Amino acid sequence: MALDDIRTPFGEVKKTLGGAATYAGIAASIFTKVGVIAVVGKDFPEEHIRFLNGKGIDTRGVKFAEGRTFRWSAYYEYDMAQAHTLKTELNVFSGFSPEVPDGFSGAGHVFLANIDPKLQMHVLGQMRDARFTALDTMNFWIGRSRQRLTEAIGKVDAVFINDAELRQLCGTHSLVKAAKHVLRMGPEFVVVKKGEHGALLFSAEGAFSAPAFPLEDVIDPTGAGDSFAGAAMGWLAKSGGADEKQVRKAVIYGTAVASFNAEHFGAGKLRGLTIEEVEERVRRLAELSRFE
Amino acid sequence: MALDDIRTPFGEVKKTLGGAATYAGIAASIFTKVGVIAVVGKDFPEEHIRFLNGKGIDTRGVKFAEGRTFRWSAYYEYDMAQAHTLKTELNVFSGFSPEVPDGFSGAGHVFLANIDPKLQMHVLGQMRDARFTALDTMNFWIGRSRQRLTEAIGKVDAVFINDAELRQLCGTHSLVKAAKHVLRMGPEFVVVKKGEHGALLFSAEGAFSAPAFPLEDVIDPTGAGDSFAGAAMGWLAKSGGADEKQVRKAVIYGTAVASFNAEHFGAGKLRGLTIEEVEERVRRLAELSRFE
Repeated sequence: MALDDIRTPFGEVKKTLGGAATYAGIAASIFTKVGVIAVVGKDFPEEHIRFLNGKGIDTRGVKFAEGRTFRWSAYYEYDMAQAHTLKTELNVFSGFSPEVPDGFSGAGHVFLANIDPKLQMHVLGQMRDARFTALDTMNFWIGRSRQRLTEAIGKVDAVFINDAELRQLCGTHSLVKAAKHVLRMGPEFVVVKKGEHGALLFSAEGAFSAPAFPLEDVIDPTGAGDSFAGAAMGWLAKSGGADEKQVRKAVIYGTAVASFNAEHFGAGKLRGLTIEEVEERVRRLAELSRFE
Repeated sequence: MALDDIRTPFGEVKKTLGGAATYAGIAASIFTKVGVIAVVGKDFPEEHIRFLNGKGIDTRGVKFAEGRTFRWSAYYEYDMAQAHTLKTELNVFSGFSPEVPDGFSGAGHVFLANIDPKLQMHVLGQMRDARFTALDTMNFWIGRSRQRLTEAIGKVDAVFINDAELRQLCGTHSLVKAAKHVLRMGPEFVVVKKGEHGALLFSAEGAFSAPAFPLEDVIDPTGAGDSFAGAAMGWLAKSGGADEKQVRKAVIYGTAVASFNAEHFGAGKLRGLTIEEVEERVRRLAELSRFE
């Protein structure tokens, strides 16, 4: 969980509630009961915790540590394709060792957001009742902890990763070859996030291509990947299954939620997003890709 | 029509049969009777004409002019996203004024491949029975002949354009806004070609997102956009209608044919591509995007 400063051609926000666990948690809470494990500093506004609790999110896993909250400052150019980081202050995040609270270990669905794969495995090891698990990662861990990351990937059911990172991880430009490579590491599903170009899902049953929802304006893409994954996992928890057909639908729900997220600064829209709005956008995504 | 030298990380070919009219013509010939209007030099191998005639393509519109055929030489980097031109020799193309042969002017479907918009309008003016017309263009004409290009766009039913060119044409990064801008110029349909990310179709009825066919290896993307448009137009000619639903399907047929094209050097695969192979890939595209 983080406090972000974000500037895009459409404006800027300061010290806004951010972080992968925040975006994924709020997105998942649209569909299911959520518990979040994270760390914040003593400077973290109490109102954010009250807000998350108001969404039904269990924050017993949010540790208040001595020091300042993780801070991230970035801007986007006109094309919005990539965040340009101005500053990253790890602060309390640097010594973070996630602890799973009592009552969390029975969760059926576990999403390990982007963090050191060693910590992802540490959490996963305590989730004894997990029926469907997934992780996200980033270029930093691919470069720094490839061995441990490969090990973590081998322990989950699904990997969420963006196209550039997948290419980096597997040393090939071909997303098809790279996805097959990751499937051989162990997971049943590889979900490739392509931003404005949608997402691809790979499994032993083949490939699925999810369209992006065409937006007139992308205002701020921050958290789109995390809200995508959080919504997909939340929808899977709600639907109760995890066969390929259901994961396809989960990817579409992720797409819908992420598209709302990108239309507003930070987690602005996500905070009040209703399941009815999401269902309406899912219907439009179906209409968008129908040709038979 | 051109003779191309192409190098990609997977190999190279020299003096291979190329050019927008060639790719579009062969692709369309899978579905319908085709006539091609183009110019070549006295050096143009007679075997290429025989090959085109063997595909049922009427080449009475191919003028043999004094001089050398248009030559293009380019290479692709590993990501295949963009052709890097090494040399362009206009040769006989520089003074080309397309003439519509007797018997061509009754064609119902007209595709104006990338060329000076002045010449596109010159041809279009002679196609008295055209029921569905489309044009393609490129950055050069957007920069050089914006006024005439806008005028030409106003005269056709559909515009085929890649995403970067659409953004350049309309001065906005938003493809949705840009497409609406082009629709206001007159055409009923705007087809945005996004290469490995598929295609978008915009019309008054909304948007359609066509997935790209996920290829293990892209060997040579040359001509993919032209074979895409040619196949779409050919399929529309065969199907006989042009409502939004049919144009959606046309875009899918274009996607299927272009995907075969990109798997081989030059027009290699296209030369022997059968309608059965295309139909099989269309079925796989349907499976690829189904989630309901």
